Amino acid sequence: MGGSNSTGRPRAMPPVEEVDIAAVRYKSPALQAPHLTGFSLRAFLWLMESPLLGPLITSVLKSQNNMPQMLQQTVIPERPMYFPEYPPQDPEPGVVLVGDDRHPVERVHEALQYLPPYDPSVRWATEEKLPFLYWKIRDFAHAYRSGITTPSVVAEHVIAGVEEWNNKKPPMPMLIYFNADDLRKQAEDSTRRFEQGSPISILDGVFVAIKDDIDCFPYPTKGATTFFDQIHTVEKDAVCVARLRKCGVIFIGKANMHELGLGVTGNNPNYGTARNPHSVDRYTGGSSSGPAALVSSGLCSVALGTDGGGSVRIPSALCGIVGFKTTFGRTDMTGVLCDSGTVAVASPLASSVEDVMLVYSAIAGSRPMDKLTLRPSPLCVPNLLSPDNSNIMGSVKIGKYTEWFHDVSDREISSTCEDALNLLCSTFGCQIEEIILPELEEMRTAHVVSIGSESLCDLTPHYKAGRRTEFTLDTRTSLALFGSFTSTDYVASQCIRRRIMHYHMEAFKKVDVIATPTTGITAPKIPPSALKSGESDYVVSAYLMRFVIAGNLIGLPALTVPVGHDKQGLPIGLQLIGRPWGEASLLRVASAVEELCLKKRNRPSAFYDILKA
Amino acid sequence: MGGSNSTGRPRAMPPVEEVDIAAVRYKSPALQAPHLTGFSLRAFLWLMESPLLGPLITSVLKSQNNMPQMLQQTVIPERPMYFPEYPPQDPEPGVVLVGDDRHPVERVHEALQYLPPYDPSVRWATEEKLPFLYWKIRDFAHAYRSGITTPSVVAEHVIAGVEEWNNKKPPMPMLIYFNADDLRKQAEDSTRRFEQGSPISILDGVFVAIKDDIDCFPYPTKGATTFFDQIHTVEKDAVCVARLRKCGVIFIGKANMHELGLGVTGNNPNYGTARNPHSVDRYTGGSSSGPAALVSSGLCSVALGTDGGGSVRIPSALCGIVGFKTTFGRTDMTGVLCDSGTVAVASPLASSVEDVMLVYSAIAGSRPMDKLTLRPSPLCVPNLLSPDNSNIMGSVKIGKYTEWFHDVSDREISSTCEDALNLLCSTFGCQIEEIILPELEEMRTAHVVSIGSESLCDLTPHYKAGRRTEFTLDTRTSLALFGSFTSTDYVASQCIRRRIMHYHMEAFKKVDVIATPTTGITAPKIPPSALKSGESDYVVSAYLMRFVIAGNLIGLPALTVPVGHDKQGLPIGLQLIGRPWGEASLLRVASAVEELCLKKRNRPSAFYDILKA
Repeated sequence: MGGSNSTGRPRAMPPVEEVDIAAVRYKSPALQAPHLTGFSLRAFLWLMESPLLGPLITSVLKSQNNMPQMLQQTVIPERPMYFPEYPPQDPEPGVVLVGDDRHPVERVHEALQYLPPYDPSVRWATEEKLPFLYWKIRDFAHAYRSGITTPSVVAEHVIAGVEEWNNKKPPMPMLIYFNADDLRKQAEDSTRRFEQGSPISILDGVFVAIKDDIDCFPYPTKGATTFFDQIHTVEKDAVCVARLRKCGVIFIGKANMHELGLGVTGNNPNYGTARNPHSVDRYTGGSSSGPAALVSSGLCSVALGTDGGGSVRIPSALCGIVGFKTTFGRTDMTGVLCDSGTVAVASPLASSVEDVMLVYSAIAGSRPMDKLTLRPSPLCVPNLLSPDNSNIMGSVKIGKYTEWFHDVSDREISSTCEDALNLLCSTFGCQIEEIILPELEEMRTAHVVSIGSESLCDLTPHYKAGRRTEFTLDTRTSLALFGSFTSTDYVASQCIRRRIMHYHMEAFKKVDVIATPTTGITAPKIPPSALKSGESDYVVSAYLMRFVIAGNLIGLPALTVPVGHDKQGLPIGLQLIGRPWGEASLLRVASAVEELCLKKRNRPSAFYDILKA
Repeated sequence: MGGSNSTGRPRAMPPVEEVDIAAVRYKSPALQAPHLTGFSLRAFLWLMESPLLGPLITSVLKSQNNMPQMLQQTVIPERPMYFPEYPPQDPEPGVVLVGDDRHPVERVHEALQYLPPYDPSVRWATEEKLPFLYWKIRDFAHAYRSGITTPSVVAEHVIAGVEEWNNKKPPMPMLIYFNADDLRKQAEDSTRRFEQGSPISILDGVFVAIKDDIDCFPYPTKGATTFFDQIHTVEKDAVCVARLRKCGVIFIGKANMHELGLGVTGNNPNYGTARNPHSVDRYTGGSSSGPAALVSSGLCSVALGTDGGGSVRIPSALCGIVGFKTTFGRTDMTGVLCDSGTVAVASPLASSVEDVMLVYSAIAGSRPMDKLTLRPSPLCVPNLLSPDNSNIMGSVKIGKYTEWFHDVSDREISSTCEDALNLLCSTFGCQIEEIILPELEEMRTAHVVSIGSESLCDLTPHYKAGRRTEFTLDTRTSLALFGSFTSTDYVASQCIRRRIMHYHMEAFKKVDVIATPTTGITAPKIPPSALKSGESDYVVSAYLMRFVIAGNLIGLPALTVPVGHDKQGLPIGLQLIGRPWGEASLLRVASAVEELCLKKRNRPSAFYDILKA
């Protein structure tokens, strides 16, 4: 790619098919932006929102980060790809059809059949011998069915736990809406079903938290703003929530989040900032901060979040749990705030791979009209029971872009992830293949322009109607930046989207799964000054988002599994990125990694043992 | 829809399914923009391009035309639709499959079988009894096969004609590139094939002009700019051109156009402005000005244009010929300048419906990768031979939005179109149904934002690299406006696109075809002051574009047929809009209208009788 020169010929990218991928050199991102909290944030925002200086400041910010160079000064020969359009995929080996047109209960039941054998009663009897971490869905099912406890008993523990957490110093506001009466009512209904010997499904009586950008009737949906319920009325469950409700789950309330999902730390001055159960002076990561904290702390088994820029995977990694971002369009987004965007999917967080798999089987299923253009492959799960399973694992090729892989804040993050991969290879005989993914900086830019423009588009009418000052300072800073994007920035970003899709599909010709650390840092400390008025730290955000973008910009399924912790005991997540609609194969690999790394996981310091309490 | 008020609640559109369409009132657009030529255009542009005043002026312009109100101050509940996504369509009655995976020669041969019987020798013998207008493709085929003339003889007439036209006062620069030697060479090859008794297809020896935004090797592609060949290298034919070449057509050169297609008059100070063959002091309409003038004047039988905002239909209507804009994605756009956009299709112009149908059969066929998302219905033509044909015509329901239909500059335009429809109904028994199409103003706004942003995105790197002053003043005015669109304007426009698709599909539940005048005015006069430095007249443009937008924003097939002329003898076109992928049914209705209105067409004053010359 030539630089621009004075002869009137701008820099031009070669057509994507002509890029010599092997010759591409990794470039570590050198993101430039000020770290702002308290007064400095307020002053900076004042400048950014000023009609005269604002355009100048956003212009400098964007220029420092090469945005105009990439989007306005470069000829991009590809046509735009406005949402992830997937090339046809070969059928995956060893997967079984769940049937996304069937009732959620049937689907969950189907998925359950292919899990590896597990006898909770053995685990319960020999608990001290096993590295106990979390109660799985199958543990709850056993406890309810064998009369060890009931959903109503557990509900009281949840209610006590939530209160205890809210009263802690510092408080851990994991939930925005919580209604003890409603919770008791749901638990009673579930308990009655167990008493009558007719639980609805394996998910009956399982406690689930819903991120506050997903409709869960009768709670309001605020996206963790102070006022969004005034402009968004909740009349029924989001489709994914309704599917879970049909399976008999118990909703514990609306989980805290980074306001409107526009940040990845989880900082939230409106409701307080959720704390990381592994270290309560640290962020959970975001934007699904509450869901991750609730699952990580043991207060509930499962949560639903949304992942538009790593928002499920980042907090899951930082909190030491499993977060599973499915293929774009896999789950009907009706009733989710970011429904209109092209990067986000509602996705499960849980303490184990098998639990995200069960929940995935319940909530997945594309919106009928999306099937016209996205052409989703059928909903599948891996057959983890099959004797072929280890053969299939042995044939798995794992892609690793080594320079990118190790471009983290502390080498122990990537080394821990590398150890997990090496263990996987030595155990199953699968192979690591070196890959190169060009234009990562362009990918990040295209993503921020896409998610920023799409989010702002929904907010603009309210913004213009005088709601601006009701958002947090952090959100306003982001929105001021997003407001400076031109329509051609948006279209150019979609041209980049097509290039990035090409590069990933080239990699997937060689490998089955791409592995990276989930985040470039472990849980960052919460600056005390950031609690009251928020924080803007694009540099930390960039570390958190370093590896997650392909899951969003080109909609690939991606998953984080805990594989260990750093010297401070903070969890480290390994990210596995799969082929489009390749959730089933991805879950098989994740399950193997989880199994191998189970002993390296540590229990959160703020753990609430809901079942044994 | 409530107006915005002071309580912080913006205007909100109801969800599209809840709109009471029957209660919608037609609103005539009150477009506000100055009419500028010469010095005033130059001064206005200077202001628009000034860093300080420019944003203010574009802001006033947009506000006067309600753009911020529609795109930024209104909650639009629909999700964006980034390109026309068509709902599934019922198979049409009485159509035959052409098979778009077959060789173009076979396809054209197939289409030919279903044309009504026509014996050119009878027409040639009884010419004076028939209202002669143009030689059709079947006339050329007859003349070549019967030895009346040869492609080489006709080529000399074309060469002489082009020279004569270029030397007229005023000059009629219909072609930008013309190479007499290349033309003779192609004609000799074709002549030899006829001598050997082996013409390639019915299109062999047919003279075709290609709009200057479509690659036709070895000519450069400039989009009628002065310099685009420096940034766009032509190494082979565009796909649609290559398909025609395989059928044996003779390319006469690159046809003039509105610079980069960014205007609908055809004004072009770079190469001179093509004149309307019906009245040489008037515009042809644009942007396919040269193609329409060439076909209308008789210099060639067929031309290929591109239609992103009426650019084939408008000049066809103003020049009294047939222009056929096919469904978005119907024709592979590889090798066409506006390839990356979401509104344009390369489409044929010809003197008769049967000729556009033959050319359509040759050039159509979606890009393989587009088939993934657009899911085109198979390529079909109407069976015009079938005895069922008039039965099918009798069952056709024609949608007419009466208030819109008559909102034209002079009622004789809409009355002429109405007469054609009434004649159709009285002849075949088909019925006119009243329909309402809501949000026409929003549709126009969404279209200008879409086409403007997509065009500008391709140009921005060159613009930033100092090419700005090489564009015409008119283009620069448009680009300055487009440059003021934000990324949220773009996304909001795509939400409108989904609404507009809904309204049209609702109409298509009641009717098979929507009929409108093609343009709201007949050919406008060319102000002498506009010849040298161009012209910006959004009010005239809006009249020209009043009825064409649905064909582009939501990609519907649409066609203009000449149905008469106004008091000044200027042609009037009737536009027929079809269902997605419903080209075949549309062509059947168009063919019937053409037949009935043949006597009402008049011969251009500047007609060059190429076959009898």
